Amino acid sequence: MSYNLLKGKRGIIFGALNDMSIAWKVAERAVEEGAIITLTNTPIAVRMGDVSELSQKLNAEVIPADATSVEDLEEVFAKSMEILGGKIDFVLHSIGMSPNVRKKRTYDDLDYDLLNKTLDISAISFHKMIQVAKKMDAISEGGSIVALSYVAAQRTLYGYNDMADAKSMLESIARSFGYIYGREKRVRVNTISQSPTMTTAGSGVKGMDKLLDFSERMSPLGNASADECAGYCITLFSDLTKKVTMQNLFHDGGFSSMGMSLRAMSQYEKSFDDEGNEILG
Amino acid sequence: MSYNLLKGKRGIIFGALNDMSIAWKVAERAVEEGAIITLTNTPIAVRMGDVSELSQKLNAEVIPADATSVEDLEEVFAKSMEILGGKIDFVLHSIGMSPNVRKKRTYDDLDYDLLNKTLDISAISFHKMIQVAKKMDAISEGGSIVALSYVAAQRTLYGYNDMADAKSMLESIARSFGYIYGREKRVRVNTISQSPTMTTAGSGVKGMDKLLDFSERMSPLGNASADECAGYCITLFSDLTKKVTMQNLFHDGGFSSMGMSLRAMSQYEKSFDDEGNEILG
Amino acid sequence: MSYNLLKGKRGIIFGALNDMSIAWKVAERAVEEGAIITLTNTPIAVRMGDVSELSQKLNAEVIPADATSVEDLEEVFAKSMEILGGKIDFVLHSIGMSPNVRKKRTYDDLDYDLLNKTLDISAISFHKMIQVAKKMDAISEGGSIVALSYVAAQRTLYGYNDMADAKSMLESIARSFGYIYGREKRVRVNTISQSPTMTTAGSGVKGMDKLLDFSERMSPLGNASADECAGYCITLFSDLTKKVTMQNLFHDGGFSSMGMSLRAMSQYEKSFDDEGNEILG
Amino acid sequence: MSYNLLKGKRGIIFGALNDMSIAWKVAERAVEEGAIITLTNTPIAVRMGDVSELSQKLNAEVIPADATSVEDLEEVFAKSMEILGGKIDFVLHSIGMSPNVRKKRTYDDLDYDLLNKTLDISAISFHKMIQVAKKMDAISEGGSIVALSYVAAQRTLYGYNDMADAKSMLESIARSFGYIYGREKRVRVNTISQSPTMTTAGSGVKGMDKLLDFSERMSPLGNASADECAGYCITLFSDLTKKVTMQNLFHDGGFSSMGMSLRAMSQYEKSFDDEGNEILG
Repeated sequence: MSYNLLKGKRGIIFGALNDMSIAWKVAERAVEEGAIITLTNTPIAVRMGDVSELSQKLNAEVIPADATSVEDLEEVFAKSMEILGGKIDFVLHSIGMSPNVRKKRTYDDLDYDLLNKTLDISAISFHKMIQVAKKMDAISEGGSIVALSYVAAQRTLYGYNDMADAKSMLESIARSFGYIYGREKRVRVNTISQSPTMTTAGSGVKGMDKLLDFSERMSPLGNASADECAGYCITLFSDLTKKVTMQNLFHDGGFSSMGMSLRAMSQYEKSFDDEGNEILG
Repeated sequence: MSYNLLKGKRGIIFGALNDMSIAWKVAERAVEEGAIITLTNTPIAVRMGDVSELSQKLNAEVIPADATSVEDLEEVFAKSMEILGGKIDFVLHSIGMSPNVRKKRTYDDLDYDLLNKTLDISAISFHKMIQVAKKMDAISEGGSIVALSYVAAQRTLYGYNDMADAKSMLESIARSFGYIYGREKRVRVNTISQSPTMTTAGSGVKGMDKLLDFSERMSPLGNASADECAGYCITLFSDLTKKVTMQNLFHDGGFSSMGMSLRAMSQYEKSFDDEGNEILG
Repeated sequence: MSYNLLKGKRGIIFGALNDMSIAWKVAERAVEEGAIITLTNTPIAVRMGDVSELSQKLNAEVIPADATSVEDLEEVFAKSMEILGGKIDFVLHSIGMSPNVRKKRTYDDLDYDLLNKTLDISAISFHKMIQVAKKMDAISEGGSIVALSYVAAQRTLYGYNDMADAKSMLESIARSFGYIYGREKRVRVNTISQSPTMTTAGSGVKGMDKLLDFSERMSPLGNASADECAGYCITLFSDLTKKVTMQNLFHDGGFSSMGMSLRAMSQYEKSFDDEGNEILG
Repeated sequence: MSYNLLKGKRGIIFGALNDMSIAWKVAERAVEEGAIITLTNTPIAVRMGDVSELSQKLNAEVIPADATSVEDLEEVFAKSMEILGGKIDFVLHSIGMSPNVRKKRTYDDLDYDLLNKTLDISAISFHKMIQVAKKMDAISEGGSIVALSYVAAQRTLYGYNDMADAKSMLESIARSFGYIYGREKRVRVNTISQSPTMTTAGSGVKGMDKLLDFSERMSPLGNASADECAGYCITLFSDLTKKVTMQNLFHDGGFSSMGMSLRAMSQYEKSFDDEGNEILG
């Protein structure tokens, strides 16, 4: 069902890889809601993923670009404005990757060159994207910029590693730039802190299934899906949220406000059944 | 412009007094978006305010009720379901009043009977409303409950007095009940922390104009208006936010994430012009 | 070992019942650190608990008082100043009780008279204590007031019930009064958010042992004990924290900043062993 | 006055430059409290500042080191353990600098090489310091690591620029490493969010005097001084805070919990006197 919430709006979606991607769902939903968009991802992701399929389906051009490259970003905005016929109304940043995690470097054995890459890809790219857009005056007055984050920016989850620090920085960039872009062009900048989601990126994380289970049982509404996240993004791109900025908005079925649910604790208690009800180890 | 975001939904709006009220704007906007609603306020507010005007305009029945009375609340839900023809999809709680403030009792000279009234009217009424609704099974699966709050729940503003404590409790109730109603009926419970707004209630606050000025200059997007707040409420009542719950959501032009803006500081600096640039007193 | 951190200071400790009480430990530690103190608790607690034993041990007079009674509080401060020979330098508020929990009323079936009692005992008593002290000018310039809180004030834990709302209000009172008492007399007001602790009060909570286990495994340093909490209180009563005010300070081994620990998740995973590795229910 | 709170403890203080530095005050106070310490700063800071004076006064060796260099950090810990005769009990990280600020690059015109330097100096150095220490097993069981932060990590202050993002990352590192170092060696990692302080670094910031004035008037206890910060650091290094970890602790006279004080607003109102009481601009 469409509400035409984004009728006449122009958007750029960073980070769609395949139909498990949140960015993919956002792209689909944005078009359903009346927007015209461009898609962008790294050249290798464009080759290996299914972006061209999405491109055809949505009649949305793909602009391969490395989001850590200022030049590439300039091209993304220049081409997008050309293709879409005007300034951009909304942008989604759904980009994150930790080479330290990939190389199985633990947090107390980080490689600092790789940490720089984690930060560049997952956080600084957001600053670059906004700085480029602002310099080019590429975003419409009152436009909306959203990046995807995770609760690890505030609370430590084992194994999330240097991505936690990158997400903290990402959320800080949203505030810092939200102030400047807001006062000058009324552009909103927010992050959505989404439930853990079984995307291609997420599915590689060790123990992801158990974390999803715990998160599901802790959240009174259960984990939020990629589809639901897309719906929420649409509200932030729409004209109904013109005074929401510099916020990190939890879209997580309530997880972030939970200390312990009965459902998660009931499951936890089962773990003691074989052990004679031990307390602590 | 309408998106039909609330098409076919049934709602109850607590707290509309006159066309300066946020609840008034939410009622208008909800109907524009396709909802059918009932209105409720205290008998005295119904007599003294312009609710009947709104009632006619929106073709929405008024049910006078004291939101601190469980019986009255039961009647509100019973009648609303009867009038609207089914369970309720969304509820707005826009109720708050401090008899201590009215009686000019400062925070270090509170009257404790009046404090109980502040809490009962401004916070416990929210619990009563939800408890009544849940016991009557009056809210649809996946429904949405929103209460209006203020940043004073987290940060102290002089003169806000015992309303700060009431708003803290209000936000806690949203979490506590959000957990229970969410796990059982997928009902969402959230608060919106709105910019200071020149409603009839607000206009009585001493120094309100200067506070509004400071808040306006601190917020990169300026203060959010009652109309804008109505738009934001609609997104939370809609099906696009089905996994957002137990949150306090700032709708404030960025104020809550600001420490100091250039614009507010520039104004502040002017205060020293007559005084030879004094530092501290 | 004593540092004489409270040498020459006068204090009042509210809420010591027996040697499991945090307030008991704080009283002992305060005296070790050179303070002279009075003890107070309700008349019934004084009769039923071991306060007279503590009184003798510490040479500290017991003043029976109902902390919800302004008159009783006036007597506590008047007598304490008389006994201790001057204004009070520090006060501990360790008081909380929910008649709704005792009567097994669930959060969606609260008795509102009992809720008022929960609030009066667990939160408003803190306001009354400070208001009384301020009116009597009973706290020394730069004095320190601390109340004990729990993470449930920010995040929902099943079964904590209306105590969560009371603790939220308690923390708000610390901010609201911290502002006023700070600007006028430089008196600090803070709350300590302590790990779940197996006190007499805590031991009555159903499922408390499992919650303690989960909390222990989530917290990198494990749960904080009552003894450790006493040590932390001493730092807040001392002159080393004269600019710390209006804060809620977590004393919890890191729990509040955790999303998921490896140790808790390893235990959680065991719960699936008998069930063929089920994902969700 | 000394309490001997750090008697027998060994510490390393990063970042003392001259007697305006917070790190300088912490070094002095730590020695007063019975600790033996080493001092470290960059070679250029050692040459240009007064560190050798402090070194003599405290009988504390200076180890010049670039805190962004893993090798240099290894030497700091190796030499410190050698000089002090054992593992280190506490470390202060008081390091931060933004080349973008120095070069007057605004936040919407950052140089990304300089941003990398800001992050490396102000945030990643903290990770490197801890990773080096952990790999060398240089911190005693139950030791304490503290870094200095600022409220800009949570709320935007104009002109603080990319330091805000660096401080956010710094606070995230405290959590991430606090989890790991805590579970393995019971080492605490915290940040102190200090009032704006007129250090040599701070005094270069444009408009710093007005910001200090506003902050002073907003904070019920006024701004916290460097001396007071030193006292607070001591409590965190002591054995009285063994269960406090992964926290960002505000030491700011209450500023962080204020929305608006009467005193700041009274000053603000004066700014309108010449302008006929204008509202907004």
